[in-house]
Amino acid sequence: MQFEIERIIRTALAEDIGLGDVTTEVTVAGDTVARAELVAKEDFTLAGLDVAAEVFRILDPEVRVEQIFVDGQQVRKGEVIAWLKGKASVLLQGERVALNLLQRMSGIASLTAKYVAEVDGTNATIVDTRKTVPGLRALDKYSVRMGGGRNHRIGLFDGVLIKENHVAAAGGIGAAIERAKKKLSHTLKIEIETRDLNEVAEALQAGADIVMLDNMTLDEMRRGVELIAGKALVEASGGVNLERVRDIAETGVDIISVGALTHSVIAADISMLFNHK
Amino acid sequence: MQFEIERIIRTALAEDIGLGDVTTEVTVAGDTVARAELVAKEDFTLAGLDVAAEVFRILDPEVRVEQIFVDGQQVRKGEVIAWLKGKASVLLQGERVALNLLQRMSGIASLTAKYVAEVDGTNATIVDTRKTVPGLRALDKYSVRMGGGRNHRIGLFDGVLIKENHVAAAGGIGAAIERAKKKLSHTLKIEIETRDLNEVAEALQAGADIVMLDNMTLDEMRRGVELIAGKALVEASGGVNLERVRDIAETGVDIISVGALTHSVIAADISMLFNHK
Amino acid sequence: MQFEIERIIRTALAEDIGLGDVTTEVTVAGDTVARAELVAKEDFTLAGLDVAAEVFRILDPEVRVEQIFVDGQQVRKGEVIAWLKGKASVLLQGERVALNLLQRMSGIASLTAKYVAEVDGTNATIVDTRKTVPGLRALDKYSVRMGGGRNHRIGLFDGVLIKENHVAAAGGIGAAIERAKKKLSHTLKIEIETRDLNEVAEALQAGADIVMLDNMTLDEMRRGVELIAGKALVEASGGVNLERVRDIAETGVDIISVGALTHSVIAADISMLFNHK
Amino acid sequence: MQFEIERIIRTALAEDIGLGDVTTEVTVAGDTVARAELVAKEDFTLAGLDVAAEVFRILDPEVRVEQIFVDGQQVRKGEVIAWLKGKASVLLQGERVALNLLQRMSGIASLTAKYVAEVDGTNATIVDTRKTVPGLRALDKYSVRMGGGRNHRIGLFDGVLIKENHVAAAGGIGAAIERAKKKLSHTLKIEIETRDLNEVAEALQAGADIVMLDNMTLDEMRRGVELIAGKALVEASGGVNLERVRDIAETGVDIISVGALTHSVIAADISMLFNHK
Amino acid sequence: MQFEIERIIRTALAEDIGLGDVTTEVTVAGDTVARAELVAKEDFTLAGLDVAAEVFRILDPEVRVEQIFVDGQQVRKGEVIAWLKGKASVLLQGERVALNLLQRMSGIASLTAKYVAEVDGTNATIVDTRKTVPGLRALDKYSVRMGGGRNHRIGLFDGVLIKENHVAAAGGIGAAIERAKKKLSHTLKIEIETRDLNEVAEALQAGADIVMLDNMTLDEMRRGVELIAGKALVEASGGVNLERVRDIAETGVDIISVGALTHSVIAADISMLFNHK
Amino acid sequence: MQFEIERIIRTALAEDIGLGDVTTEVTVAGDTVARAELVAKEDFTLAGLDVAAEVFRILDPEVRVEQIFVDGQQVRKGEVIAWLKGKASVLLQGERVALNLLQRMSGIASLTAKYVAEVDGTNATIVDTRKTVPGLRALDKYSVRMGGGRNHRIGLFDGVLIKENHVAAAGGIGAAIERAKKKLSHTLKIEIETRDLNEVAEALQAGADIVMLDNMTLDEMRRGVELIAGKALVEASGGVNLERVRDIAETGVDIISVGALTHSVIAADISMLFNHK
Repeated sequence: MQFEIERIIRTALAEDIGLGDVTTEVTVAGDTVARAELVAKEDFTLAGLDVAAEVFRILDPEVRVEQIFVDGQQVRKGEVIAWLKGKASVLLQGERVALNLLQRMSGIASLTAKYVAEVDGTNATIVDTRKTVPGLRALDKYSVRMGGGRNHRIGLFDGVLIKENHVAAAGGIGAAIERAKKKLSHTLKIEIETRDLNEVAEALQAGADIVMLDNMTLDEMRRGVELIAGKALVEASGGVNLERVRDIAETGVDIISVGALTHSVIAADISMLFNHK
Repeated sequence: MQFEIERIIRTALAEDIGLGDVTTEVTVAGDTVARAELVAKEDFTLAGLDVAAEVFRILDPEVRVEQIFVDGQQVRKGEVIAWLKGKASVLLQGERVALNLLQRMSGIASLTAKYVAEVDGTNATIVDTRKTVPGLRALDKYSVRMGGGRNHRIGLFDGVLIKENHVAAAGGIGAAIERAKKKLSHTLKIEIETRDLNEVAEALQAGADIVMLDNMTLDEMRRGVELIAGKALVEASGGVNLERVRDIAETGVDIISVGALTHSVIAADISMLFNHK
Repeated sequence: MQFEIERIIRTALAEDIGLGDVTTEVTVAGDTVARAELVAKEDFTLAGLDVAAEVFRILDPEVRVEQIFVDGQQVRKGEVIAWLKGKASVLLQGERVALNLLQRMSGIASLTAKYVAEVDGTNATIVDTRKTVPGLRALDKYSVRMGGGRNHRIGLFDGVLIKENHVAAAGGIGAAIERAKKKLSHTLKIEIETRDLNEVAEALQAGADIVMLDNMTLDEMRRGVELIAGKALVEASGGVNLERVRDIAETGVDIISVGALTHSVIAADISMLFNHK
Repeated sequence: MQFEIERIIRTALAEDIGLGDVTTEVTVAGDTVARAELVAKEDFTLAGLDVAAEVFRILDPEVRVEQIFVDGQQVRKGEVIAWLKGKASVLLQGERVALNLLQRMSGIASLTAKYVAEVDGTNATIVDTRKTVPGLRALDKYSVRMGGGRNHRIGLFDGVLIKENHVAAAGGIGAAIERAKKKLSHTLKIEIETRDLNEVAEALQAGADIVMLDNMTLDEMRRGVELIAGKALVEASGGVNLERVRDIAETGVDIISVGALTHSVIAADISMLFNHK
Repeated sequence: MQFEIERIIRTALAEDIGLGDVTTEVTVAGDTVARAELVAKEDFTLAGLDVAAEVFRILDPEVRVEQIFVDGQQVRKGEVIAWLKGKASVLLQGERVALNLLQRMSGIASLTAKYVAEVDGTNATIVDTRKTVPGLRALDKYSVRMGGGRNHRIGLFDGVLIKENHVAAAGGIGAAIERAKKKLSHTLKIEIETRDLNEVAEALQAGADIVMLDNMTLDEMRRGVELIAGKALVEASGGVNLERVRDIAETGVDIISVGALTHSVIAADISMLFNHK
Repeated sequence: MQFEIERIIRTALAEDIGLGDVTTEVTVAGDTVARAELVAKEDFTLAGLDVAAEVFRILDPEVRVEQIFVDGQQVRKGEVIAWLKGKASVLLQGERVALNLLQRMSGIASLTAKYVAEVDGTNATIVDTRKTVPGLRALDKYSVRMGGGRNHRIGLFDGVLIKENHVAAAGGIGAAIERAKKKLSHTLKIEIETRDLNEVAEALQAGADIVMLDNMTLDEMRRGVELIAGKALVEASGGVNLERVRDIAETGVDIISVGALTHSVIAADISMLFNHK
């Protein structure tokens, strides 16, 4: 993932700094050294601290970052997350990009952690979707893991998910699964979207590895789980929110996929404070 | 902006499709043509339709997109935003990237429009900040404009914004402004962050073009506006939210900058529906 | 895959043409139009014709290519595979890159087809490995499919393959599989390399999805297949060649992975002949 | 060549690792240090050891590589080529890319060395062609040098090679050479392809620097060499194989170009073995 | 600016070295260490020494560069600007690129310094234009600063400059300025090109921040300055040369923009001399 | 060369336009169509018109360009070089980049043409050097050809030029040439720099293909030409200017290399005028 992180950071720095930080250039002497701290302004689950540190290191390998927390930990309002030391001009130039990444990533981890807590004690696992911000999927999915969730497939290339339109094109659930089994890599699992119990039965019959129950009622989900009876993984999808997720988990599904984890992120509130001595 | 849009879309498509959409490859015949529509699932202000259309065109120049709304318009739940026609495989491959962009952009425009409506009739203009998603700043800022807001500087390179740390390093507000005026391009305006009325007075004295009132009370803002009396633009910043923005506007400030416009975006709810005949 | 093919072709053309084809520039008038044909100089299975055509189209969208065969077909010595028409200078500039790709790809397809023919009538599927030429994996794996084989995982990111060193680090087969099951995406299958029947039993016990029998004798393979008895897919690996592949297939394994398909390719013999009228 | 090697390695690592080595991530603790050795499983001429070492260094500059052999040397079955020490996760991630490069490069060097040995004692030099794997020309040509061969031109930009189609377009051998001499850089040699002795005479007359005898019989080659009599370099091309190369060399030609050196490479058999203590 | 400098240098080195410095490879032993000095062959104002040093460091981080002068200083014929120590092969490979950059940049600084000296004691500031060499704008504009000049806007994105054609399209000077004020970022200054005093008056009336007097006579300029009377910055443009610049400055304009600073550069004469011991 | 031209133009447009031409966006309606002409403001030799046209086509394939002159022709003050028709916003955005390229390229062609005219009737050919602007070598060298000159080697990779420092490292002129001949591609000519007639004799003895007479007097050159007597090409280099070039040519040298052709370019004066109807 290191090349991807490097690409993201370099793109972000180029976008923000362009040909130079004109304000810093004329107000801050090039060799002034500064210390700064990253401070939590609210409670949250941390994600992105390594990435934020890398932002400064890419600008200047001399910057020292002392991490007090690590990704995945719970941070409380007022706590210092990390100390930085380096040229003041470098800290000022990297500040916004580092915070933009860290705040979004911690926002994702925090929301994921809330969903994970809701389903605690059930069989269900919270997973993400492909509803990520274009260009940041690697970081979005990493942040979900830091919040205690797990990942669905990365993209269209590394997992088979046969949806309604594929079924229509292939001429039925059975035909679609059969074609996938015959042509695709033996290393790929085959998941299929179903909209009612008849489709669930058909998917099971055709040998699906994962059956997605799409936008079903709690009662339908319960009956779907019974019908599948361990012969495939069961994934609930559609209309999942914090109020409803516990009920869904208690139907016995294995997996609950939640688009909101990454498509509607509230940035965690984090500041970078400079020490003036 | 076209090269930047192309870069964003190509990055997003490569990220999502990688070496191929394995599901579509085995279920959908290569030459099947499909029609699909983009439908609003809630009310919102549209932004990103041109970009979404470009996603499909980059995959296949043969795709036809008929836009029914244009960016900046208000769309109501249930309305069709655009029609698409092209190879089914192409529509399926581009769907997620197009929606991810369109939903985020419309989410930004919609939130901006709410802030703009709140300050209607006052002198204040709503502007964004640099708290954008890394790699998407061009689109984030465009979406703010579509929602009726205006943009603050793009990055560190195209505007001078002297903050507390710069002032400390330069040895005072006056010194900082003077150095900026002497060294920088004559085409750049000089903005300075102030924390109390003494600093406002000092900034004014030194000839700042824009005075930012940072995290001030409504009363301080009012007195700041009086003090400045048109000799500089006045920008309110910090702790702005929908509840408070009207009060801030009524203090008489010229500009209100709102980080939340881009750092905590709720995706607009939009679906892509395929027509099966 | 289209961006990847474009990347490969542009890299190859830049590498070969650099700042210009100095010979053609001084000997061929810019507007001379030529026709040329791609001709088989031996029997082979075709792969790469679309890619070869794309080479010329990237140089000049005006070039016309009439494909007489399609990828995956058997071509006999002397047959014309495709006709090209375009500026002579363009055909001459693209010739070497197009042939280098087409000959390698057809070489892979042809070798794969030989392995596939050897196991005809058995349960076994021929698959490739990650022993591809750096930078061309997408094309190497596509060519295997054109030869009738199927693909193993694309890379380290889209499939779990626990080898001896991973087992040693994780503290045993059971522990390694358990950790993978708990942490990784539910969409990934878990494959494990085994070296004897005890390890096979252990892998089965721990719930592996695919059991690789690495460098085993035919007798061990037979007993491995019996032991697994359909509870996991069985993959034979190591020391596979054309002489031995039938015997391996007859042990009842599901999958036979063959590194030689892509690591030691004999280019198919194909020429590009110009028509001078 | 360093930027080109870096490009090749980064492309190859991105292709193989993508967003991460999922197997290693869950089975190998991040700080486990390992030692591994690269071992020859057959006799061969070494090429690519520096490149293989660079693969690991690009992943992690902390990896230590102790090279026991150097490129160009003969290695015997069972000999250790190099030792590596570094994080186990890094060695596992780089293994396949390093071996894919090293095995191909040593395969090329070994085949070249066989051709060079065959012509030992004659005047002839073995050279490569442009029939290289797209994207790897720099490494393919380097490997030929390590096997004792020399390089023909890199691409279309750094040497003039007038072939049959150029001659046809220019209106004859004399006209083609004359135009090249008048227009091109004085630093470029002019080579021309000839198909019979009349063309050889014509080429000589026109002042070619290098005369290629294309697909001629041994007897024609001998007469060609006599005719040219040192007034130009003589290159034999077409239908060269290990059985025939000595006879060709003994006709007195200066240069023998061999496409097979790079278009049909048998990977040298090399393993990476981990030390478990 | 560091990513931009890195891009420029890497592009330049790839362009010059390609797959290798064939001369150095066969004549200089890989481990030979050399010392060299950069020497002024005429008087000039230095710019680009950091960039030149970076050329060698990108080739090999081991190269040591001891800078005797710094950018912006005046250097006299015969003076040594810097010492270099490193592998001879690296110094030879970087020599041309380093000098090409350093000589151009010092040429720009020197010409700028001449203009700046001419207007000494007046109110006028010398600035550059967008007439830079494509791809090198960052360096061209930096060199102008090193010569004592200041920069106009970087590009079309960071400053408003309303020219004749924009005025025609917008329907008059007033309309054009009004539209810019209403729609654009409040951080941008608005500059407008005027061709006579009527237009100056109109621009002033509409609230332009900067009024450009384009191709006016000295007398017109004087009257323009009087008319504007400090209510906007006044920029003289068009037909500026060393003979005339003093007269222009004495009209009282604030800014004089000079295209020749970057579009017609005479390279400073600098050599790199190797020490042979 | 097309990929290189595309790279240069895209870099230049990104550099100049960035996220958008803010002035044009607010003053010019998106669908306004304009006509413009490129007009010569002085006499010059044209180079770069195709490149300038490509600038507009890359921005918008709909722009029509009617070329009245072609590269290499002489243009007189006042003549229209080309007509353009397209969206006004596109013409305005491309104007500066197109002119920056066209003016520099025509400047190079014009200076070259002056040198070529000076040596008219002699045996000497005017060639360029590697003293080009970093990133634009392809265009610089093309412009030299348009001015009637020819090119020296492109870079370090496509020609052998043994200079003083190489000779010192290799242990003498003979040793250096011998090593080059033994190791390098047979397609490369070997050029060597000589400083006096003894070195010329030594170079000749060792079989150099090209002998460079570096910074010699006219008399030394004459004697060098006599000594070499057609056994190698003779190149004069160092201290060449328009005053002296005829005398140098008359010494009988074959080649005169002139750094000033590309390192100190005076841009040709060309304007783009818009037609308002």
